[in-house]
Amino acid sequence: MLNGNDKSAAVLGATGYTGQEMVRLLKKHPGLSLRWASSESEAGERVQGTALRYLPAAEVALGEADVVFTCLPHGDAEEWTFRAREAGSRVVDLSADLRLGKGGAVYGIPELWRESIAGRDLVANPGCYPTGVLLTLSPLIAAGLLDGERAVIIDAASGVTGAGRAAKREMLFAEVADDYRAYGVGNTHRHVPEIEAGLARVAGGEAPQFVFTPHLLPLRRGILETMYVPVKAGVDAGDVAGALRGAYAGEPFIDVLEHGLPSLREVVGHNTVAMGCAPVERVRAPLVLCVAAFDNLLKGAAGQALQNANLMLGFDERDGLPQ
Amino acid sequence: MLNGNDKSAAVLGATGYTGQEMVRLLKKHPGLSLRWASSESEAGERVQGTALRYLPAAEVALGEADVVFTCLPHGDAEEWTFRAREAGSRVVDLSADLRLGKGGAVYGIPELWRESIAGRDLVANPGCYPTGVLLTLSPLIAAGLLDGERAVIIDAASGVTGAGRAAKREMLFAEVADDYRAYGVGNTHRHVPEIEAGLARVAGGEAPQFVFTPHLLPLRRGILETMYVPVKAGVDAGDVAGALRGAYAGEPFIDVLEHGLPSLREVVGHNTVAMGCAPVERVRAPLVLCVAAFDNLLKGAAGQALQNANLMLGFDERDGLPQ
Amino acid sequence: MLNGNDKSAAVLGATGYTGQEMVRLLKKHPGLSLRWASSESEAGERVQGTALRYLPAAEVALGEADVVFTCLPHGDAEEWTFRAREAGSRVVDLSADLRLGKGGAVYGIPELWRESIAGRDLVANPGCYPTGVLLTLSPLIAAGLLDGERAVIIDAASGVTGAGRAAKREMLFAEVADDYRAYGVGNTHRHVPEIEAGLARVAGGEAPQFVFTPHLLPLRRGILETMYVPVKAGVDAGDVAGALRGAYAGEPFIDVLEHGLPSLREVVGHNTVAMGCAPVERVRAPLVLCVAAFDNLLKGAAGQALQNANLMLGFDERDGLPQ
Amino acid sequence: MLNGNDKSAAVLGATGYTGQEMVRLLKKHPGLSLRWASSESEAGERVQGTALRYLPAAEVALGEADVVFTCLPHGDAEEWTFRAREAGSRVVDLSADLRLGKGGAVYGIPELWRESIAGRDLVANPGCYPTGVLLTLSPLIAAGLLDGERAVIIDAASGVTGAGRAAKREMLFAEVADDYRAYGVGNTHRHVPEIEAGLARVAGGEAPQFVFTPHLLPLRRGILETMYVPVKAGVDAGDVAGALRGAYAGEPFIDVLEHGLPSLREVVGHNTVAMGCAPVERVRAPLVLCVAAFDNLLKGAAGQALQNANLMLGFDERDGLPQ
Repeated sequence: MLNGNDKSAAVLGATGYTGQEMVRLLKKHPGLSLRWASSESEAGERVQGTALRYLPAAEVALGEADVVFTCLPHGDAEEWTFRAREAGSRVVDLSADLRLGKGGAVYGIPELWRESIAGRDLVANPGCYPTGVLLTLSPLIAAGLLDGERAVIIDAASGVTGAGRAAKREMLFAEVADDYRAYGVGNTHRHVPEIEAGLARVAGGEAPQFVFTPHLLPLRRGILETMYVPVKAGVDAGDVAGALRGAYAGEPFIDVLEHGLPSLREVVGHNTVAMGCAPVERVRAPLVLCVAAFDNLLKGAAGQALQNANLMLGFDERDGLPQ
Repeated sequence: MLNGNDKSAAVLGATGYTGQEMVRLLKKHPGLSLRWASSESEAGERVQGTALRYLPAAEVALGEADVVFTCLPHGDAEEWTFRAREAGSRVVDLSADLRLGKGGAVYGIPELWRESIAGRDLVANPGCYPTGVLLTLSPLIAAGLLDGERAVIIDAASGVTGAGRAAKREMLFAEVADDYRAYGVGNTHRHVPEIEAGLARVAGGEAPQFVFTPHLLPLRRGILETMYVPVKAGVDAGDVAGALRGAYAGEPFIDVLEHGLPSLREVVGHNTVAMGCAPVERVRAPLVLCVAAFDNLLKGAAGQALQNANLMLGFDERDGLPQ
Repeated sequence: MLNGNDKSAAVLGATGYTGQEMVRLLKKHPGLSLRWASSESEAGERVQGTALRYLPAAEVALGEADVVFTCLPHGDAEEWTFRAREAGSRVVDLSADLRLGKGGAVYGIPELWRESIAGRDLVANPGCYPTGVLLTLSPLIAAGLLDGERAVIIDAASGVTGAGRAAKREMLFAEVADDYRAYGVGNTHRHVPEIEAGLARVAGGEAPQFVFTPHLLPLRRGILETMYVPVKAGVDAGDVAGALRGAYAGEPFIDVLEHGLPSLREVVGHNTVAMGCAPVERVRAPLVLCVAAFDNLLKGAAGQALQNANLMLGFDERDGLPQ
Repeated sequence: MLNGNDKSAAVLGATGYTGQEMVRLLKKHPGLSLRWASSESEAGERVQGTALRYLPAAEVALGEADVVFTCLPHGDAEEWTFRAREAGSRVVDLSADLRLGKGGAVYGIPELWRESIAGRDLVANPGCYPTGVLLTLSPLIAAGLLDGERAVIIDAASGVTGAGRAAKREMLFAEVADDYRAYGVGNTHRHVPEIEAGLARVAGGEAPQFVFTPHLLPLRRGILETMYVPVKAGVDAGDVAGALRGAYAGEPFIDVLEHGLPSLREVVGHNTVAMGCAPVERVRAPLVLCVAAFDNLLKGAAGQALQNANLMLGFDERDGLPQ
């Protein structure tokens, strides 16, 4: 093994944006060494800061890593995930392919479902947008604060790395710069069923209604989600913040702000979801504003994947993650 | 007069972002010539493309222009607006000082209240955010499509020129770049009473409820407003788009898209509000998504001010405006 | 014809960045109407603001336009240019294919070689970088100010639209943003022979030596070229500025600044090259700094192409160009 | 002391960009704890991630820290630096005030003058631009590769944090975005005498001639310097790269690339200067292109200051610095 460490890890699709971030984290993990990294587009080139070279996926030794992180495009990931598991590796799949439970995959948000992840061999890593939504709304559902008659409005904005590194015209610099636009509107985005499944699991029944609208920001990384949360009569922003604080006391990767709302840039480079709440005046039915911000490539992808892998392999959940 | 044209115009506060845009438009107006332009910070310097030099406000000949555009900071504008009117000029005030009706000012959105503007001598030019909100929601109120029991959610994002050109630390490049954040949340922004007054006027009574949340985008100009509009049972996105299309048929500065939603960059440099509507699935109480995009310095400020001035002075409303 | 105007124009490759700009200019030309516009990727879609739809190149009526603008990728353009000419159209080729004189094409920088362009039927439109270099250095060569023993250093920076609209990974937003880098260094860039040929033509013999280093800027459009010009003993920055001013007196699209140096953003959206000169202290062999700034899609591409077409067809050279 | 560590550090001017970075580094240093941090604008507010609050400079205990980092504006720093030294602290001054040797300050580039820094009590931390220039050119001077008859051309570009966090109109987002411009041209920039003094020290006599032109980039951090280096007959790019590699073998914070040239973004967040060389064709007198890239706030400011402090206090030079 590369560092003489205890266990080995590998990355399928290591030169996309999540794959690059995955490799970057693994190089600093105290108990995991990087055994191989696959890339079709950069096969043969050196993995920076290591003695390895990228291999085409067809040439990797799937079973020789204790854990494989699948960072392949949606649709391609499923097959490779199953092959890696059959070869004897534990797998964290960062694609969307298994998030609704296919193949017995466990959905991996440690702060919500830590017990179900520990020791497992197949985890579906959540989508970036759902991570912030579920971490924010779950404690409010659990505490019974939501008014189920009205829909939660989730207005979200993301940097472009969330769209992957494939060469698409609409992701060219000259197309994205100086622009801002909504896409996948009206609850048609791929993340909607994933959010719904997560909320239903927390609710122990039907998910509360919501409307999800993502927007594309002219910046590289980071997500900010502005949520308009309908609450029961008598519930205010302090109650909502209190529920979040109670649920996440002691959590190393959740930061419920004492005052103010988080901004996107302050969380980039960290594996943290920062959350804040504010009252809404001049409306009849009570509403609380919640804002969540996090790095789409860390807590929204590779960072959370490493939290999951740490739980699967018995490491400290914080190992290898910047705090 | 500068061009030998029919009437003369002047700008108070000509080197802020709206003032610069105002001057730029006036230089191309077929029937207005720029008589003077005031600036404290650049007093004595040449007004580019003209034979004029900026004057300190204290030295301008207030009454010598047929129309004065007041582009001063909020709070400073009111006094100068009244002085200019007393000196005999018509005035369009681009600040927030008179928008709630002070001094008999007429609120100037031509597409909604054209008759009340024509021939007047004092117009309060609307705020940037309210312009898009009022133009989008007014036809829906008029057509009786809104469900008044639920609040409209208005999630808005603006480029930084909306914050003016004063040297503030939080507007430095290194503070704004790579960031995105909400501000003035929970219906506390200065534009909330202005939006409310406008909606109430359209409704002929109480304004429908709404929640307004502005965000700061890391780009120079442009506003995009994503509105979650609660509609009555049986009303769909097609009905909403139809009401907008009906209300604005023949309007040169409103563009209701046939399909898709507007993006911010495509309206920058134009005096147009582009609007689009989309259905929202998976919610019980019916909701339609409306998105409005426009240039905060044109239709959101100087462009609309020139529309108003054209109406006040008897020019064609489109004179001097890019189409 | 579309507008009932005098002559007709057409664009091959109308949905790349130069093609889009070409179409945008043609729609406002007082004497040219757009007859057709080709695009493979958007064939069948509406050309915004017109009644036309994009056609695949294979379906256009090549000979039916008085002038064809070839905005195809380098390598593809040559064949189509010759076919259009054979079909009877005049052609301005915006690619690099004919810039070194192939097929009898005239190299089209109007301010330098206006007479050779007027009335011709085939013009090679210059590259973006060469346009600024040749316009700046030519008057200095003609005036005998350069010290031919030393090389001119040309350190240039361009926005990304200069690289075209093809979907390449290295032009993705997330690759270009927050970055700045040199490319094509050491006189290996495609524009080096073009610059050399132009300088040789002005010199009437061997070109002065130069070193050309382009850099990629994280912005959409605009070029700034910083040139370190070795001058003969006794020549100073005032002499250099004087030579530029003398050469370009009355030129509508050249702006030799009275003081200061141009910045990139102030020329974006205009068909102008702005130039400035500054002295260099603390060096033994005399050197003058010259900076040229212009919009790579206007004076660096479509704007200059329209100047050329105006000369070819007998229009006023300024027709259809923003000033 | 805050962490129970060996020695204590303090920061004067802790909320400017270099001060913030200084604090960020100190919080992770294995042997230094942050004792106090001064700020006028944020006095009383919490220093994030610590139990401290910012103090006005007038209230700090100057002598109670083993090392004080002066991150005050140029002009203000000198007085405070001397007061801190008189109170018994070692001082690293990050301003320009003492860089030409005032007060017996040692100029601190460890890779060039390590011995003269170790154990000293007053170090002037170099300017950002000079750091890259001196590190690149010094080995070439030492190896006798430069042709002293010709000037080195240094064309440099920097992100905006180099200009500090004072609220100046020209540094507003809307002024800097989408722009690129030269400033301080013609060897008039404050860093020119500093570069000259450093080169003269290496040369052991007169400095080689050079021309320095900085440009402002529309990004937050990072510097890229493109240097056109005149070399003696027979010297090529391989020789130049060889001299750099020889001089910096084993240096943890210098990265001489095996092939290609560094780009700005890849060094942001690191304390490294990355360097690359390329041949220049088509010129008579031999020239080699050298490009250096580094983070202006780390190796160009706070990172290098910490290297210096480590040497002054007897720590491992790499302590507390990301590698």
